[in-house]
Amino acid sequence: MVICAACKKAEAEIRLDYAKRSLCRDCFTLFFERKVRNAVLKYHMFSVKDKVAVAVSGGKDSGALLAVLKRLFPRVEMVAVHLNLGIEGYSDGCEEIAKKIAKAYDIELIVCNLRKAYGFSISDFRKTRFSRKICASCGVVKRYLLNKTALEVDATKLATGHNLDDFVGVLFNHYVHGDVEQLKRLLPVNVSHNPKMVTRIKPLCEMTEKETRYYADCMGLPYKSHACPFVHQRRLEKRQRLLDKLSEVMPNFRHVFFKSHVKRLQPALQVEEEAVSVRECTRCGMPTSGEVCSFCKIVSTLTKRKRLEKF
Amino acid sequence: MVICAACKKAEAEIRLDYAKRSLCRDCFTLFFERKVRNAVLKYHMFSVKDKVAVAVSGGKDSGALLAVLKRLFPRVEMVAVHLNLGIEGYSDGCEEIAKKIAKAYDIELIVCNLRKAYGFSISDFRKTRFSRKICASCGVVKRYLLNKTALEVDATKLATGHNLDDFVGVLFNHYVHGDVEQLKRLLPVNVSHNPKMVTRIKPLCEMTEKETRYYADCMGLPYKSHACPFVHQRRLEKRQRLLDKLSEVMPNFRHVFFKSHVKRLQPALQVEEEAVSVRECTRCGMPTSGEVCSFCKIVSTLTKRKRLEKF
Repeated sequence: MVICAACKKAEAEIRLDYAKRSLCRDCFTLFFERKVRNAVLKYHMFSVKDKVAVAVSGGKDSGALLAVLKRLFPRVEMVAVHLNLGIEGYSDGCEEIAKKIAKAYDIELIVCNLRKAYGFSISDFRKTRFSRKICASCGVVKRYLLNKTALEVDATKLATGHNLDDFVGVLFNHYVHGDVEQLKRLLPVNVSHNPKMVTRIKPLCEMTEKETRYYADCMGLPYKSHACPFVHQRRLEKRQRLLDKLSEVMPNFRHVFFKSHVKRLQPALQVEEEAVSVRECTRCGMPTSGEVCSFCKIVSTLTKRKRLEKF
Repeated sequence: MVICAACKKAEAEIRLDYAKRSLCRDCFTLFFERKVRNAVLKYHMFSVKDKVAVAVSGGKDSGALLAVLKRLFPRVEMVAVHLNLGIEGYSDGCEEIAKKIAKAYDIELIVCNLRKAYGFSISDFRKTRFSRKICASCGVVKRYLLNKTALEVDATKLATGHNLDDFVGVLFNHYVHGDVEQLKRLLPVNVSHNPKMVTRIKPLCEMTEKETRYYADCMGLPYKSHACPFVHQRRLEKRQRLLDKLSEVMPNFRHVFFKSHVKRLQPALQVEEEAVSVRECTRCGMPTSGEVCSFCKIVSTLTKRKRLEKF
């Protein structure tokens, strides 16, 4: 029996290799919440003046996010936002879970149903030229609608459940491919200077996937157990397993790389600012660098298809 | 039997996973030499006006370097430089190999014998506070003496045998630890603006270790088969095996990361130049950022010890 390194009494239930310690359930909960609070304060994510929209997908990360934020900051105004993506045999279950969690933590839940509000679902992309890039299209839709919904409820911050593993996975990819533009923007907080864009925050960015899952379990949160049917996780999964291998040799690899990026590399990266004039999408009026925003572009492929089908 | 992808005739002998092709011995030699020539030209490493000092250690990389440079650029003035580090049961063998290769390629060899010229050997660091950092001390000594020797023979460029695996290993480490200062300087060519520093070049920086070893074998070059007795290669080796794992999933990982660094990341990295006034070492007169250069500093620990031993 391994004894908890913090209380020295209870039996340890989770091993944190990167920190070289094992903790019991109660001490882990305290530890997790302290780390999230520190991240929120350190990166100036929000204050009591903010209204925080929390994106809740039905997964473990966003569930843990809602729970930890509400427990840590009960006085901060929060609203949960869920997007029902209309994926058969999947999305309705996710919505149910989001409702349960929001109810359990007494937070208003705004559901945006893609089919009802916009007349299409993510599944519809199967029939377009985006069929092999369905996850990328889903990403565009989610970013757009989470921002739009957050704006509609007058939220001043939009929190998502990205954890350390997610963050470093993307980080690693951008470094290997030298994507300076993306690296420059990859931060725990993306401050918006545009009134039509809500500042995005990632309060779990310093928590590993293992910690986040265990916290969700400790809190007794329901979460969807199987992945989205469209996720061809192979590439992403493979990358994470590779980074796991790195972590076997260097247990704090993700923590060290994250910190190096945020503290030293990102501040040193200079992007040739081309003074991108942020315009308004000619179709929806939302911010875009081009004439039509990505959301309207990909959605137009669906409507074109429908028009063609009528003939 | 796999047929060579280039000549479509001979049996392929080497598989290049990153290029998805297998080549026969002759076609590989041409391929290797073409790639090295391209690197030399692309990074403006040297011209016929230069005198190139080639550091030859007795290992496969520096042997391959001397061979390929002499074969590709017979009209460029070259001199081989070897440091005899005075490591028992190791260094004399290395010197023999360096002599053989220089003779085979008809290149003058300058040998700097540490014990004879400076009265100490790398082994002596065992008794100093650098005993656990003996490889780092050896690095300081080699960088210093290679530069000094190159200056003494009026060389305008100093070529070392660092291959792609070496380069990316260091690169990876510096990115993970966010060492912006080092990353800024890590390039195939380090141009010197100081008359006491020779511009350093790495003509094999785009060739993998496997390719370099195979080229050395194709050329029938002798090279030391066992590692230096002081090399506790575990850390370096472990890192390379990890990068090998990455390469299993993404065979061109090292090539892509190298290119990303040289083409996009390094140019975007801005180091706060503190206008480091390059001074001259008060003991030896060579360039240093402090009062005494690293070489003189570590060597002084040896002489101090000797003085103490006299009492």
